[in-house]
Amino acid sequence: MTNNEWAEYPGQMIPKLEAEQVLEHGASMRQLMIDLFPLCRSITGNGLRSTLEILQSLIPLQIHEVPSGTSVLDWVIPQEWNVNDAYVRNSQGEKIIDFKKSNLHLLNYSVPARGFFSLSELKEHLYSLPESPAWIPYRTSYYTRNWGFCLSDDQLRSLPEDCYEVVVDTRLEDGHLSYGEYYLAGQSRDEVLISTHICHPSMANDNLSSLVISASLARALTGMKLRYSYRFLFLPGTIGSITWLSRNQKQIEWIRHGLVLACLGDAGSFTYKKSRRGDAAIDRIAASQLEHLPEAGKSVNFSPYGYDERQYCSPGFNLPLGCLMRTPHGEFPEYHTSADNLAFVTRENLQQSFALLYGVLRAIELNRNYLNLNPKGEPQLGRRGLFPQDGTQDQEEIGRMKMALLWLLNLSDGQHSLLDIAERSGLSMDKLFDAATLLVRNGLMRDLSCSAPSSLQFEHNTRESLC
Amino acid sequence: MTNNEWAEYPGQMIPKLEAEQVLEHGASMRQLMIDLFPLCRSITGNGLRSTLEILQSLIPLQIHEVPSGTSVLDWVIPQEWNVNDAYVRNSQGEKIIDFKKSNLHLLNYSVPARGFFSLSELKEHLYSLPESPAWIPYRTSYYTRNWGFCLSDDQLRSLPEDCYEVVVDTRLEDGHLSYGEYYLAGQSRDEVLISTHICHPSMANDNLSSLVISASLARALTGMKLRYSYRFLFLPGTIGSITWLSRNQKQIEWIRHGLVLACLGDAGSFTYKKSRRGDAAIDRIAASQLEHLPEAGKSVNFSPYGYDERQYCSPGFNLPLGCLMRTPHGEFPEYHTSADNLAFVTRENLQQSFALLYGVLRAIELNRNYLNLNPKGEPQLGRRGLFPQDGTQDQEEIGRMKMALLWLLNLSDGQHSLLDIAERSGLSMDKLFDAATLLVRNGLMRDLSCSAPSSLQFEHNTRESLC
Amino acid sequence: MTNNEWAEYPGQMIPKLEAEQVLEHGASMRQLMIDLFPLCRSITGNGLRSTLEILQSLIPLQIHEVPSGTSVLDWVIPQEWNVNDAYVRNSQGEKIIDFKKSNLHLLNYSVPARGFFSLSELKEHLYSLPESPAWIPYRTSYYTRNWGFCLSDDQLRSLPEDCYEVVVDTRLEDGHLSYGEYYLAGQSRDEVLISTHICHPSMANDNLSSLVISASLARALTGMKLRYSYRFLFLPGTIGSITWLSRNQKQIEWIRHGLVLACLGDAGSFTYKKSRRGDAAIDRIAASQLEHLPEAGKSVNFSPYGYDERQYCSPGFNLPLGCLMRTPHGEFPEYHTSADNLAFVTRENLQQSFALLYGVLRAIELNRNYLNLNPKGEPQLGRRGLFPQDGTQDQEEIGRMKMALLWLLNLSDGQHSLLDIAERSGLSMDKLFDAATLLVRNGLMRDLSCSAPSSLQFEHNTRESLC
Repeated sequence: MTNNEWAEYPGQMIPKLEAEQVLEHGASMRQLMIDLFPLCRSITGNGLRSTLEILQSLIPLQIHEVPSGTSVLDWVIPQEWNVNDAYVRNSQGEKIIDFKKSNLHLLNYSVPARGFFSLSELKEHLYSLPESPAWIPYRTSYYTRNWGFCLSDDQLRSLPEDCYEVVVDTRLEDGHLSYGEYYLAGQSRDEVLISTHICHPSMANDNLSSLVISASLARALTGMKLRYSYRFLFLPGTIGSITWLSRNQKQIEWIRHGLVLACLGDAGSFTYKKSRRGDAAIDRIAASQLEHLPEAGKSVNFSPYGYDERQYCSPGFNLPLGCLMRTPHGEFPEYHTSADNLAFVTRENLQQSFALLYGVLRAIELNRNYLNLNPKGEPQLGRRGLFPQDGTQDQEEIGRMKMALLWLLNLSDGQHSLLDIAERSGLSMDKLFDAATLLVRNGLMRDLSCSAPSSLQFEHNTRESLC
Repeated sequence: MTNNEWAEYPGQMIPKLEAEQVLEHGASMRQLMIDLFPLCRSITGNGLRSTLEILQSLIPLQIHEVPSGTSVLDWVIPQEWNVNDAYVRNSQGEKIIDFKKSNLHLLNYSVPARGFFSLSELKEHLYSLPESPAWIPYRTSYYTRNWGFCLSDDQLRSLPEDCYEVVVDTRLEDGHLSYGEYYLAGQSRDEVLISTHICHPSMANDNLSSLVISASLARALTGMKLRYSYRFLFLPGTIGSITWLSRNQKQIEWIRHGLVLACLGDAGSFTYKKSRRGDAAIDRIAASQLEHLPEAGKSVNFSPYGYDERQYCSPGFNLPLGCLMRTPHGEFPEYHTSADNLAFVTRENLQQSFALLYGVLRAIELNRNYLNLNPKGEPQLGRRGLFPQDGTQDQEEIGRMKMALLWLLNLSDGQHSLLDIAERSGLSMDKLFDAATLLVRNGLMRDLSCSAPSSLQFEHNTRESLC
Repeated sequence: MTNNEWAEYPGQMIPKLEAEQVLEHGASMRQLMIDLFPLCRSITGNGLRSTLEILQSLIPLQIHEVPSGTSVLDWVIPQEWNVNDAYVRNSQGEKIIDFKKSNLHLLNYSVPARGFFSLSELKEHLYSLPESPAWIPYRTSYYTRNWGFCLSDDQLRSLPEDCYEVVVDTRLEDGHLSYGEYYLAGQSRDEVLISTHICHPSMANDNLSSLVISASLARALTGMKLRYSYRFLFLPGTIGSITWLSRNQKQIEWIRHGLVLACLGDAGSFTYKKSRRGDAAIDRIAASQLEHLPEAGKSVNFSPYGYDERQYCSPGFNLPLGCLMRTPHGEFPEYHTSADNLAFVTRENLQQSFALLYGVLRAIELNRNYLNLNPKGEPQLGRRGLFPQDGTQDQEEIGRMKMALLWLLNLSDGQHSLLDIAERSGLSMDKLFDAATLLVRNGLMRDLSCSAPSSLQFEHNTRESLC
């Protein structure tokens, strides 16, 4: 089957991903990550704003600016934070810790400070990571006024008694919280939400990896005929999603499926963390896609700790949204350190993650219910030439196609979605959809989703199992 | 307990199988198989017809003849196929492949053909099995017009260049499809369906084994007082069950339980493939019986590939019917080869299969709901002499009987069938029924199935869980 | 948190158990067991009566006396049995088996007997345990008139041919069956039943261990503000619980949770046998408490064999009541022998069992439903100082407290009880309750159980999941 054929039926459908497209996206994702890496992002400020502006070169991202002091749910938008410079100088005048060498050196959200300190006084503001003594840790102090420097434990332990000069030339003042939003309208108002946190400074896996994948995916989908509408959010963690949720409470009811993306650039196998509901369609679709990877990924249960799924899955929203990662946060040693650098994230890893995510969205689009039009006994497939000829193709592939045809005919009683059939048969939704298309074209099945009157297409209550 | 006692209560009941009966059935099954083995069966034709006529010596089988060209569901009855002779002769005039030596040599449903062929031309019509080079494979071409010969790979590879004469003296012309049906009326119109495919030529396990077991079982049940009615079908695979289903659509709604029998003569342990429903009473009863075999069998989930359960469990029928096998088709190397011969199927294997199947049917008959008439606290069993005396019997047996009595009293609240109690207690339905009979006779339980007004006995909607 | 704080909120609550209380109860339980050990208990008689009278020194136990011949459910109260003396004397006049040395020597409920016997005649009345040849077995003959002696197999095998004098100076005559009952009224008529069998003579684990724990627990709860009412029963096995059930059929409908206690003094890990229902709140609470023990205990499914749960869980009552044990009856070799003595039961084991049981009752009391008053997004905990400060406490403890706060906020939608949250989060109910109290005090959650109008507190239909 070629993409052209898919384009004809069933009208709206994310086409299969071609290998050359993957390579192309891989190259651009890698370059985008290199461009974004040096910026000093935080939950507010110019690093965050510049990041969003760079994304505008790929997709027509809308940048929202929310003033400091605005109430958002139980929270308040904090003052905006910006850095001119920050360093520690020894008595010889040498900058021994320098923000300009690595923005991780500065405790994120450090308040302005200047002065001279003995070693022991200074140490109260120094953070290191004894278990990985060569790496600079990443630390923040968003809501407690403090200043500090992060450095390798090796350096910390080698600091001599001295009189140290500290300069923290930052501004913490009324301004704005920035976030980016890209809405891609599909055939239905029913919506798929893709959310990524973008508040971390120079770290590659957490979370530039997800940022560049999400933006590339948004670009790839642009211009396609889509069944669902898609909303891509690029937000500072926690306060960003709380801000968006606070400002979009009417829109939320259209969300049918959602994903938080995080840490998608390392070499680990994939992990999908289920929604609070635990049995949402997205939970089952993600599990099905992970199962058919060359190296199968795993689904884990929801827990209220993690990324912005904490907010989307709070009981007042309880959205059908999970979190897709490779190695989960905190389970790789480079997490929140200077070792989460550009070398840690390869183009191949980004490509794999992009392809998986693309596959999940495609599965969301192609999940539908069929009706076997010949439900009594099996239809005679041989007469219709529907069995792939032996010998012309890979035998395992022929076997899977035969089973896909038989499972579809057996379970397509109007009560089972493609997803249900994938789960019961152990076949991929992709393979089942190929077989379903063959059966529909031969008049053996009807696509119940397509035949629904168009008014139904915009109904949105409790349609999840069907969608 | 003797069979006489069972005969008194509860009126209708398949009695326990005696060891001598098993031996007697074993001998006659083995002899029947030897008689049937040489016939060249196919999905139509005289080999099939003769097979059914031989079965009439055991049971009053009704033989149906359905004309070629008749539409049956999505299919059409094909032309009838008969063979006079078929061989390949070399230039010395020696018959090097001869249908009369083994009917497997001829591609089943070969169209007539005559001519002279070079080795390479001939090879396009030769089928062998390189992975088992000494065996002749069994191949068919029912719906694609073709002719061919099957031979051992050893022979194939030794064939010299030569001018070969081919004679395929077959007839493929309008005629009939034959199948056999035996209906045994019980107390209720509620029906148990036992279906066996009988279209394979000289192979013993697939499926003469099931054929002779089914016929023997039918003979054994004849004359018993039965709660259910039983229907035994002997059909060519696929087209046969499709034909029966097509012609009996009103009768189908009376089917409460069913079994497809296949490959019951090899030495493998038992496999029960569940119905499409997955939790039908027959699925649970079969699992319970398999669990209590000396070598426990296993239940596997439904899949739409296999034998005639594909048709019975198609979504338009969705019958509560599974498939009972020993080693499943395709999982023993002799499958569909000349090595599936009379030596591959022993009398002992046939006897075991017969006994298991008999036990499954008996369990179907004896599954009923009881009511503890003394539900508050335990009744004092000792006072009534209901505990087997220690020392007089096998201690494990006494323990099982005690537990059977206690479980029955505990769960017989009218909501639990004997099957439910068997599943929860891990005891066999057989043992529980013995204990239940003891309790009923002592006035401690009432059999709710027996006390139902007789009009209810003929009601058939959604009674499966109770029956 | 101190006990004083708990006392304020939520009004009724069993406080946490302090280590010193455990030690104090341990000492008194051990002493009580020593006092009770020598008495010759049976299902009736003065040994049983004296046992109950001794318990009256701890708790205001009501002793019920039910006349012989009274019908109780399917049973009849037997005649009362008392022993003056019993021995076997050899021809030299030596008492070779003497009830006064161990009351296990006499077959419990032996009818009066006197006479002279040859060795072989005597042996028909002697019971030993060949698999543990040094121990005296414990045997009874409550409902079959018989007399006999139990002795070590070593002694049995060494008995010479002789003329033996037997004296069984017992009385079996109309009298009473005695049992003890202690009702502790709580805020609600909803009731927790704690039942212990007390009919065994000089054996420590089965069942003096549970007897002393139950009585100590009853004493500990006396004077507390309780949400539930508690009923402690001290009964002879089987006939005792049947008697109580027979006489209290109206009261039974108030029982919300219950436990049979048995064999709680050995060193084995804990075993909870579920109720017949299998998913009663007590089944889930007990499982949750066992899971968080230093050496996790295990839950096993209900079976109709065991202790008085057989009666409480008979289908006519079907109470939500399980059985708490350490090593189950019959699974430790000392079971029902003279080796189940005071040395077999340590003070430490008693203390552990007491603490676990106390924890189960506390969990029953503190299981309630909360409502997150800020359900959209997470509330900002940091602003309220609700996260324990790093470094001031054990890190694992801080982690558990954080997770307890997050899980409570996430699942407290009014549909999840503390028990539900414990099961899903893997956290203990204890830890969750601490966190819940913090959240309620900070205005972030409301306790739905507390806010219910008091009239609701006395409603009792189908409240189990909430209670």
